[in-house]
Amino acid sequence: MSIQTSNHKRSERKAHLPFGEKREGRLYGKPILSVLQFSRDDLEEIFMVAEEMRMMVERVGTFDLLKGKVLACLFYEPSTRTSSSFIAAIERLGGSAIPINEVRYSSVTKGESLPDTVRTLEAYADVIVLRHPETGAAATAAKYLRKPIINAGDGTGEHPTQALLDLFTIREELGRIDGLTVTMLGDLKYGRTVHSLARLLALYNAKLNYVAPDLLRMPPKIIEELKQRGISQTEHKALDDVLGATDVLYVTRVQKERFENPDEYESVKNAYTITPDTMTRAKEQMVLMHPLPRVTEIAIEVDDDPRAAYFRQMEYGLYVRMALLAMVLGKA
Amino acid sequence: MSIQTSNHKRSERKAHLPFGEKREGRLYGKPILSVLQFSRDDLEEIFMVAEEMRMMVERVGTFDLLKGKVLACLFYEPSTRTSSSFIAAIERLGGSAIPINEVRYSSVTKGESLPDTVRTLEAYADVIVLRHPETGAAATAAKYLRKPIINAGDGTGEHPTQALLDLFTIREELGRIDGLTVTMLGDLKYGRTVHSLARLLALYNAKLNYVAPDLLRMPPKIIEELKQRGISQTEHKALDDVLGATDVLYVTRVQKERFENPDEYESVKNAYTITPDTMTRAKEQMVLMHPLPRVTEIAIEVDDDPRAAYFRQMEYGLYVRMALLAMVLGKA
Amino acid sequence: MSIQTSNHKRSERKAHLPFGEKREGRLYGKPILSVLQFSRDDLEEIFMVAEEMRMMVERVGTFDLLKGKVLACLFYEPSTRTSSSFIAAIERLGGSAIPINEVRYSSVTKGESLPDTVRTLEAYADVIVLRHPETGAAATAAKYLRKPIINAGDGTGEHPTQALLDLFTIREELGRIDGLTVTMLGDLKYGRTVHSLARLLALYNAKLNYVAPDLLRMPPKIIEELKQRGISQTEHKALDDVLGATDVLYVTRVQKERFENPDEYESVKNAYTITPDTMTRAKEQMVLMHPLPRVTEIAIEVDDDPRAAYFRQMEYGLYVRMALLAMVLGKA
Repeated sequence: MSIQTSNHKRSERKAHLPFGEKREGRLYGKPILSVLQFSRDDLEEIFMVAEEMRMMVERVGTFDLLKGKVLACLFYEPSTRTSSSFIAAIERLGGSAIPINEVRYSSVTKGESLPDTVRTLEAYADVIVLRHPETGAAATAAKYLRKPIINAGDGTGEHPTQALLDLFTIREELGRIDGLTVTMLGDLKYGRTVHSLARLLALYNAKLNYVAPDLLRMPPKIIEELKQRGISQTEHKALDDVLGATDVLYVTRVQKERFENPDEYESVKNAYTITPDTMTRAKEQMVLMHPLPRVTEIAIEVDDDPRAAYFRQMEYGLYVRMALLAMVLGKA
Repeated sequence: MSIQTSNHKRSERKAHLPFGEKREGRLYGKPILSVLQFSRDDLEEIFMVAEEMRMMVERVGTFDLLKGKVLACLFYEPSTRTSSSFIAAIERLGGSAIPINEVRYSSVTKGESLPDTVRTLEAYADVIVLRHPETGAAATAAKYLRKPIINAGDGTGEHPTQALLDLFTIREELGRIDGLTVTMLGDLKYGRTVHSLARLLALYNAKLNYVAPDLLRMPPKIIEELKQRGISQTEHKALDDVLGATDVLYVTRVQKERFENPDEYESVKNAYTITPDTMTRAKEQMVLMHPLPRVTEIAIEVDDDPRAAYFRQMEYGLYVRMALLAMVLGKA
Repeated sequence: MSIQTSNHKRSERKAHLPFGEKREGRLYGKPILSVLQFSRDDLEEIFMVAEEMRMMVERVGTFDLLKGKVLACLFYEPSTRTSSSFIAAIERLGGSAIPINEVRYSSVTKGESLPDTVRTLEAYADVIVLRHPETGAAATAAKYLRKPIINAGDGTGEHPTQALLDLFTIREELGRIDGLTVTMLGDLKYGRTVHSLARLLALYNAKLNYVAPDLLRMPPKIIEELKQRGISQTEHKALDDVLGATDVLYVTRVQKERFENPDEYESVKNAYTITPDTMTRAKEQMVLMHPLPRVTEIAIEVDDDPRAAYFRQMEYGLYVRMALLAMVLGKA
């Protein structure tokens, strides 16, 4: 074996540095925990790198930027979409993943704490992606780690990479974010997705419309927060009130289980369903988004409409996650 | 990062091409759904590439032919054997896999349709391998995809890569397929494996013997189909009727549960079990095959017989799957 | 494809050689089944290679020593820690893994035997890591394999790579093993970890102290075995009897379930818990170890003590497993 030994300085590793790295870049070595941590400049840097990732994937498919880097993909809850996206992201950059989906059966159920689990994984991997059912789990874990961690959803808390990919989708599809009218439709109360996206949009000069049944309105706390930041927001019960002026229509699912009275659900559900007929009343350049999985809230006949961006949205998610991995590892 | 941007032409991706590929080869970009899609020329090309894969693996172990390619391995039913084989296949070609075995717990159980799931994975991966409990699932998925999909078993339908590896095993072990007498033994009614293999053998000048209990005979539909194609087929109840003239003995399991009357099972089971004694009455050059898992239908004492090819059969499966991945990605 | 065919000699593969290898090294091609298989020279060679792996990971993160090698990681029981460590180990050496955690659902539950399962995996992979609930499972599997297998825990039997990493931790933390006083604390009856470590320490000139409640004392069989080998051993009920003279304190968990009478557990548990106060009475250069998962037996306030080595222990485990993989594959 041709490895030469060196005078290893242990202190180097204690300085919170991943294996053999130089410090560089805005997000280098940092945890990705919440959309609230980002400035507009951060977002622009992420999107610039994500754009490079897109070009690279589309031209050559892969790139050895993160060769030898290992991602521990620790999912306490199953999420095929998100874990697959992160695994593909590290693999397309020449690195590799440790997929950990069996958490409920393993040492964790023997009573091990989250800080112990992540510190163990840190011994093996260069970066950790964590999905956890409890709000704040990723932030707690980050306190114990020397290496970067990315929050891939913590209960009803945050799912920052979803919000970043949503914003990147808008930027890629329409070329800009400033000046756009974004309409959010459906369950605006429980969807952490729309909360996070609204907070990111508040960094831009965008106008927000909220269309939701009474029971599922955007939480007053979020509305107040964005109002303080000077964002234009309006609430509506009918999509048609704002559809014609909408540049981005962000659809989320209205779940039957949210309603105590099934009749009430039946009476509103059609108002929150997108059909080809809906699309006839929308702008020609509108972008139709959905975080997926989609059930009935967007008719499958809409899929062929060029404005239907929800599968492209998944692809943009790959690029954003590639960018984040490269950036926290100091390689972007 | 040293990636240069380019004037990306979106239309390129819409032309159903995987990332950065030139069109080439017979199977390039095509789904692998059924043995019925193959001509004899297709098979010869697959086997020629599989033979190259074998040489390569035996000589150097690996090869960067599919470097940077990502395989999404989507299994709605567990199948360690098949999923491991595909994962090894992509990894031995320098690519990587996203293993997805937790489907029953994830977004699918939130009601997502198969077309939505595979279109999401297509955003991350270059090729999809699908195992699904419903007949026709892979064909349905293929309609929605721009990228190639390989059917790794769809219920009682097809498992084309198993049939291809069975045929490749015969070719590698005996040097040819034309002119051989192939005897299929055991459960010929429910085994999709023997149905698919019989259909592929019909492209060659092979003679087929079927040895099965009454309850588990080869379906008349298959016999009729092969008869129309001029294949010589005979049915038997006793293996000894044909053993001495058999070049390939393909054994499948006779499951107790298939019989309403347990006594009936007990009375026939020995007739469908291969022992060292059975082997004394077989040709010296015979090839003994089994799709595995094997329980009692081949005695473990037979494993050391050089004619016992069932573990080599697994290895041939690796080469065939490597060949198929390379071919559908236009790299063979 | 630029692969050239060659006159492949099948006999080469029958000689129990992995793909394309030259024979070299002490452990080349051998199974890793038990700590009892190692001489002191073996250990020194393993630790020398593990030390090189450490230098390499700390300096450059990765190395293509096992490029193209495939590890089948077959876990019949979940163990996030151990499987993640092996997967990281092969990936940091440029190879790749087939993670198999779904064993309970797959062909195995259809009645397939362990020898058949491992022979199938051998067709795909270059080396197998096995975790199995039955004592002797890995040794049984090894009898059927041409390629190396590593025992990652077989029931109450062995977990040799854990013992190797424990010993390597001592060596790395204190620079030597000879002459040290090692105190094992807690459940010394059921913990295969302490049994294996004690056996390895018997190859060195170390002094062993056992501190355990009556119910959980080190088995007489092990004490007798080490006595025969001339090892100094003493038993104690109170840690403070030996703490001041201890160089290595190896803590294991005392499980409540081991006690018939809960009161008895309550009366002893504090004696087997390490707190910052405990550490004030320990040597300044002592190394505090634990195989993890840790529950309450080491207070989290101790984690920041520089003597707390249990998370570094996980990292040493990575290097030991990298070394073993490289060595059994003839590449170290």
